[in-house]
Amino acid sequence: MISVEKALQTVLNSTQNFGVEEIPFIKSFGRILKEEITADRDFPPFNRVSMDGIAVDFNEFSSRLRSNKQLSFNIEGIQAAGSKQITLKNSENCIEVMTGAVLPNNTNSVIRYEDVTIENGVATINIDAINDGQNIHIKGKDGAVGDILIPQNTKISAAEIGVLATVGKSFVKVAKQPKVMIVSTGDELVGVDEIPLEHQIRRSNVFTLVSLLERLNIPSETAHITDDKQVLKSKIESYLQEYDVLLFSGAVSKGKFDFLPEVLDELGVEKLFHTVAQRPGKPFWMGTTKTCTVFAFPGNPISTFVNCLAYFYPWYYKSVGLELNEETAILGEDVTFKPNLTYFLQVKLEREKGFLTAFPILGNGSGDLASLVKTDAFIQLPSDKIEFKKGEVYPIVSYR
Amino acid sequence: MISVEKALQTVLNSTQNFGVEEIPFIKSFGRILKEEITADRDFPPFNRVSMDGIAVDFNEFSSRLRSNKQLSFNIEGIQAAGSKQITLKNSENCIEVMTGAVLPNNTNSVIRYEDVTIENGVATINIDAINDGQNIHIKGKDGAVGDILIPQNTKISAAEIGVLATVGKSFVKVAKQPKVMIVSTGDELVGVDEIPLEHQIRRSNVFTLVSLLERLNIPSETAHITDDKQVLKSKIESYLQEYDVLLFSGAVSKGKFDFLPEVLDELGVEKLFHTVAQRPGKPFWMGTTKTCTVFAFPGNPISTFVNCLAYFYPWYYKSVGLELNEETAILGEDVTFKPNLTYFLQVKLEREKGFLTAFPILGNGSGDLASLVKTDAFIQLPSDKIEFKKGEVYPIVSYR
Repeated sequence: MISVEKALQTVLNSTQNFGVEEIPFIKSFGRILKEEITADRDFPPFNRVSMDGIAVDFNEFSSRLRSNKQLSFNIEGIQAAGSKQITLKNSENCIEVMTGAVLPNNTNSVIRYEDVTIENGVATINIDAINDGQNIHIKGKDGAVGDILIPQNTKISAAEIGVLATVGKSFVKVAKQPKVMIVSTGDELVGVDEIPLEHQIRRSNVFTLVSLLERLNIPSETAHITDDKQVLKSKIESYLQEYDVLLFSGAVSKGKFDFLPEVLDELGVEKLFHTVAQRPGKPFWMGTTKTCTVFAFPGNPISTFVNCLAYFYPWYYKSVGLELNEETAILGEDVTFKPNLTYFLQVKLEREKGFLTAFPILGNGSGDLASLVKTDAFIQLPSDKIEFKKGEVYPIVSYR
Repeated sequence: MISVEKALQTVLNSTQNFGVEEIPFIKSFGRILKEEITADRDFPPFNRVSMDGIAVDFNEFSSRLRSNKQLSFNIEGIQAAGSKQITLKNSENCIEVMTGAVLPNNTNSVIRYEDVTIENGVATINIDAINDGQNIHIKGKDGAVGDILIPQNTKISAAEIGVLATVGKSFVKVAKQPKVMIVSTGDELVGVDEIPLEHQIRRSNVFTLVSLLERLNIPSETAHITDDKQVLKSKIESYLQEYDVLLFSGAVSKGKFDFLPEVLDELGVEKLFHTVAQRPGKPFWMGTTKTCTVFAFPGNPISTFVNCLAYFYPWYYKSVGLELNEETAILGEDVTFKPNLTYFLQVKLEREKGFLTAFPILGNGSGDLASLVKTDAFIQLPSDKIEFKKGEVYPIVSYR
């Protein structure tokens, strides 16, 4: 049995590279960027009008102001957004300009409509102070051509989608997702649309795992294998060839039909560890081949659930190059836990005034799937303590 | 011009009911549950063995212990998970039992393999104290048939998917998503795969909106309309018939080609407000018909972005019945903001020791799309103050 810390370190030392693929940018939401995105031109690409109004020559405005001349300007034309740049021919005149338009030649300040009266083709300015260059978003101010706008290994959110569109990256390089097979074992399990007999229950762990992976935008396939060693062996043999990751639920404990560790060993999967000093989720088995990583979680629903969050998630993040800070919360109540095990305790999270507090909700052990509905996360209480006090801060793994 | 508080209240008073649909449970991740999920049987449905080992009659064990008899039990049989309940015929014997199995008749305590030695069909117990009923997950302990396992209006996470599977809800009722059309305007805009001329830029706002909606699992369609009043009018007229929600970006300010408010008025859309006392995003226009809600956001990228988060998001949550607590963060630096406007300030969030701190990152105004890559959220600083101090707590709207 190894510690949670050692198990996690082992998991993180066994990351895989799934490669890179190029996909339409609009499909890349939630994926991990695998190229640097640079500015294809200056941003903004021209001196851009940022207010609807009139554009004038600042010197003309200033000299009229000094000599007390009236601040009326004949309107020479309109510079609309999306039109070629026009030129102010006579500096005593002005040009109407729209937000998003190119600033007309020979003008250098924009006065917004709110500060102007327009009558019979003449714009009269109603304020007596303007700044040279006002209401203009200067070419290149947000970034020069070639500047890095999005660094590699960024998780793509709506913000990055907008930048990808702006620089014309209609296709973008992202980390390939692993090809994942999720396998349940256990002869007591029947399908979701079946009516179980007295001694049977429906399959659920594979579906929670599918959903936990969907949260990471990872598609997955599922299978169920009966507790028959030969069947198990022949199916897993082909899965090991075909998939990057196998996630198992069940058949790793001490039961007479818990063939999985034995079968994986016989198939040449190198065991990295079996059983971790934690509750729930202790009989967790992990191993690798050259091309496949195998996470074999214990079959109790909470065990499978917490181990996917505590081990598969960080393994995936590191595999695709995403650096994430550990999330922590403040314990909302005193907790006593005597076993010399790391305790993954279910908690309800409350966010208030910038604090994140975790309130323990006791379920009925690792079989109590329904208790997960009442909580948001697990707080990770270390094995070297027995008393955990309200107000202390510990890592959490959250699933909402 | 109305305040942000008033605008939000107006938005929340105009929610829509998109109806309910029944979908396969495995597709319901992220959706809002529109029925109560109850237990179809007791959970667990039988007295469930929770450790691999042997099942005995506790009275027999106790009486042997009292009379110092040896704690060896002949193994009568095996109760595997998924097998019909068997019966211990002779209370001096035991039955090997597997995790997940039905507890055999006439037994009431399970001793795990770790505490037992098995030789020649005889199990000898190596500990001298056990509890009556130990290592058994009692029928109905997690919930009785008919208990509510998931309340209506829950957002479905992996936990709920597991429960849906367990109770056999292969189809589940969820809130229908609104049918959304996202429209950009502006003659300066060209497609993502086009090379813009000097005075043009690529479309980006529609794609950030598509992604912000994808975060809510809402599919959407997009269109671009040129700055031509007649074209705008005829297209919008049909969109109003066809969609639950129209999201516009641009053409709501004071420019000569900002036809949108006029056109919407002519088409009978009732204006709820136009211009909100905020920066960025001030010229926001909102209106409704009997069947359609129209959010017309200003065209600057940051304006569109923040208004979608600050108004469309809460409107959607309330429409589908989801109650969310306001998220807050601790301001990480002093900020001064003089205008009498609510300031949506871009911030980088840092989570440490259970605290959420927001560090302001100044961009170059509402046109600086690339600045969104460097931040995670907007902190909402109210209009009635000028000085905001490090350590004060304010609401945030986050987008990662």
